[in-house]
Amino acid sequence: MNNDTIVAVATPSGNGAIAVIRLSGPAALAIANTIFHGKDLTRQASHTTHFGTIRDGDAVLDEVLVSLFIAPRSYTKEDVVEISTHNSTYVIRRLLQLLVAAGARAAEPGEFTRRAFLNGALDLSQAEAVADLIAAENKASHEIAMNQMRGGISNQLRHMREQLIEFTALLELELDFSEEDVEFADRAQFLALLAQVKDHITSLITSFEYGNAIKNGVPVAIVGKPNAGKSTLLNALLNEERAIVSDIAGTTRDTIEEAINLDGITFRFIDTAGLRETADQIEAIGVAKAREKAAAAKVLLYLYDVQNNTATEVVDHVKELHREGLIVILVRNKIDLEKDEAAYQMDANLKAALFARPYASHIVPISAKDPASVVALKDVLVEEIRSLSTDDQHVITNLRHVEALRKAEQAIKETEHGFEMGLPGDLLASHLRDALRHIGTITGDIDVDRDILGTIFGKFCIGK
Amino acid sequence: MNNDTIVAVATPSGNGAIAVIRLSGPAALAIANTIFHGKDLTRQASHTTHFGTIRDGDAVLDEVLVSLFIAPRSYTKEDVVEISTHNSTYVIRRLLQLLVAAGARAAEPGEFTRRAFLNGALDLSQAEAVADLIAAENKASHEIAMNQMRGGISNQLRHMREQLIEFTALLELELDFSEEDVEFADRAQFLALLAQVKDHITSLITSFEYGNAIKNGVPVAIVGKPNAGKSTLLNALLNEERAIVSDIAGTTRDTIEEAINLDGITFRFIDTAGLRETADQIEAIGVAKAREKAAAAKVLLYLYDVQNNTATEVVDHVKELHREGLIVILVRNKIDLEKDEAAYQMDANLKAALFARPYASHIVPISAKDPASVVALKDVLVEEIRSLSTDDQHVITNLRHVEALRKAEQAIKETEHGFEMGLPGDLLASHLRDALRHIGTITGDIDVDRDILGTIFGKFCIGK
Repeated sequence: MNNDTIVAVATPSGNGAIAVIRLSGPAALAIANTIFHGKDLTRQASHTTHFGTIRDGDAVLDEVLVSLFIAPRSYTKEDVVEISTHNSTYVIRRLLQLLVAAGARAAEPGEFTRRAFLNGALDLSQAEAVADLIAAENKASHEIAMNQMRGGISNQLRHMREQLIEFTALLELELDFSEEDVEFADRAQFLALLAQVKDHITSLITSFEYGNAIKNGVPVAIVGKPNAGKSTLLNALLNEERAIVSDIAGTTRDTIEEAINLDGITFRFIDTAGLRETADQIEAIGVAKAREKAAAAKVLLYLYDVQNNTATEVVDHVKELHREGLIVILVRNKIDLEKDEAAYQMDANLKAALFARPYASHIVPISAKDPASVVALKDVLVEEIRSLSTDDQHVITNLRHVEALRKAEQAIKETEHGFEMGLPGDLLASHLRDALRHIGTITGDIDVDRDILGTIFGKFCIGK
Repeated sequence: MNNDTIVAVATPSGNGAIAVIRLSGPAALAIANTIFHGKDLTRQASHTTHFGTIRDGDAVLDEVLVSLFIAPRSYTKEDVVEISTHNSTYVIRRLLQLLVAAGARAAEPGEFTRRAFLNGALDLSQAEAVADLIAAENKASHEIAMNQMRGGISNQLRHMREQLIEFTALLELELDFSEEDVEFADRAQFLALLAQVKDHITSLITSFEYGNAIKNGVPVAIVGKPNAGKSTLLNALLNEERAIVSDIAGTTRDTIEEAINLDGITFRFIDTAGLRETADQIEAIGVAKAREKAAAAKVLLYLYDVQNNTATEVVDHVKELHREGLIVILVRNKIDLEKDEAAYQMDANLKAALFARPYASHIVPISAKDPASVVALKDVLVEEIRSLSTDDQHVITNLRHVEALRKAEQAIKETEHGFEMGLPGDLLASHLRDALRHIGTITGDIDVDRDILGTIFGKFCIGK
């Protein structure tokens, strides 16, 4: 399958000084050598860099630096050549044409990393983390991707599998001696192990809620009656953070409008402008629209004030919007205008109605007109998201992984149930094999369908 | 001045697999070494590449490849370190912060190339060609930039200067012996040399018209009466070429709308849509607007047909639009509808009126509805632009250069004139010194003003 040599531009297109064109495969050195004039690339050591020219017929296409990585000491574990050129559209296009003419094939998206996986340089979960790492735009998502890429999750999963495999083997061994009615596997120890593995898996599944929020940003909806101060609050939240996001010129990508980075977590604000038009009928269309917006949100900032809202109306509205997993933060606005007793009384009413059964868990008093007063609100936002994280140091961010874990959890529950029911060893072993298979698909330790590989690597950029 | 160490991202921002961060300066190795974990970078050979991790406190920021170029074997002739990272916004931003914290300074645009120039790795004209090379989007502009970057023009200019310097020195030597009335410099030989240098300079100045057209694309206006078929012709010209421009995915930049690449030359079509609105008053506003558009054009395709135009009206209109240097190509449309004799007669009339004094030089019969029939027109376009090039293999594309050459040409003319007038040697030598200075500013062989350097390198991208 990897008998051919692939080529792609590894750097982005756009304004910049240099571009890197990457070749990988058995003929990488020979192909580069046909158009490179300088040293004989096929006779150089791994991890060396050589200055020379690329020839296009009689003409010089470019002066380049060529770096060599000889198999297996490369990203793909194949021979890899990286050609660093001037970042000229013409040079890049022509160089690709020359390399293809010399026998290379244009790489598919993610094909370098796919080869790295197939050649055992990294497992599937690590390969997926490469794409997450590249996409990471803040500290929190970077940390999770880096931990996954460096094998944090893989090691934990592999440890679980090893324990389960050992026990499964013992169970299966019993089958060979079934007539003698021996028990190689200690039942009590086994049940303890199952409980422990299940806890780990459950913890990883739980971490997905946090991981997904970190990876994709936390969608936040600001709702409230018209003129509650939603836009003012949004501006107050955005204002001082904008600059931090792009503190070094030339490094920021196209960012989503209305997103802020708080303590390494990206919060994306969902536009709830639509609510404004339904001024007098908040109970009707208003609530329906707000509920629609809120359905896409992880966090709901419910904005109200003592002058314009009654406790009852806030309680009713929040209960209407409530759903499992939604974090509701009550934001009491216009503290510069309110009377102390009124605010105190309303806070008490809201806490009684909403905190007991947790519809909401915070009341944050602010004055949206004063950006400094929203600092406490920012802290609550970060605190609420951080509280989603489990004690486990590993965080799942990938839907494919969480689905596999849910199936593994189910198989382990069935094994436990089978024990209670006194099922024979072969049926227990069969449930365990299911669990092992599902866990194994995450790291690719068991054979993964080509279609699944296609889906995973198809999302990569070309050249990675 | 170059005691500090500069850092910048050398690759474009956007979607891609890797980014390259470049350091240059005396502390490049030491600074990289403070955050790189792997080998001790300060003890490695030049032109070697090392795998390792970048540490951000206790955490791993990224797994990277670091390439080392030890002074003077680098682009800038200083120690250079290139760190190849995953192309993540977060990783790039954080890595720059870490490097700056460790003592590097964010580089200004073009500062690496400026250092290469100041350290004698390339002369000023070559340095300018680096930016042209990166901007080159087609074969012709690439060839010119590459020739300039590899010193083609510099060598020619330096050869001229050497000849002139030798002669100037002889003239100045005569001054020391002025009482003895000797002539070290052979006057006849000197005049021949001056004539030869002046020819070279004139040829280079002439090449600018071609060079500028190649570098910036050739602006082409299609004019003619309403419904002459301008849009159809434009579509016919564009259709089949679009695909060629972007034959390999991911390599094309944002291209100018309505541009085609013919034989390595970019032709940019100027929108003359405005003309359509002046349907019935072509002699009044129409001509004025067309003239305005034509003023920005290098080539004017004048579209007409035998049914709807008279020879007189075409002649008048072309003469109105004519100006020095404008290439007018008469395009006789609707050949599928025309009668042979009428076309023949009109061709004859137009040729008599316009070819003698060259208002125009071609009549190309086409049917704009049939893209195949525009092939001949494309050939004429390329032929006309190619004919602007001189026999000289070197082409000037830079306004700064052509201005310096014009001043040098003037100074040489004054020297020649001085000879005729029998001016004394010191005045002749003074004119020659002027010429030498102007030629020297092109390559930077004489000291160039810091402001000029600022202007030149300020146009570069950061990281180059």
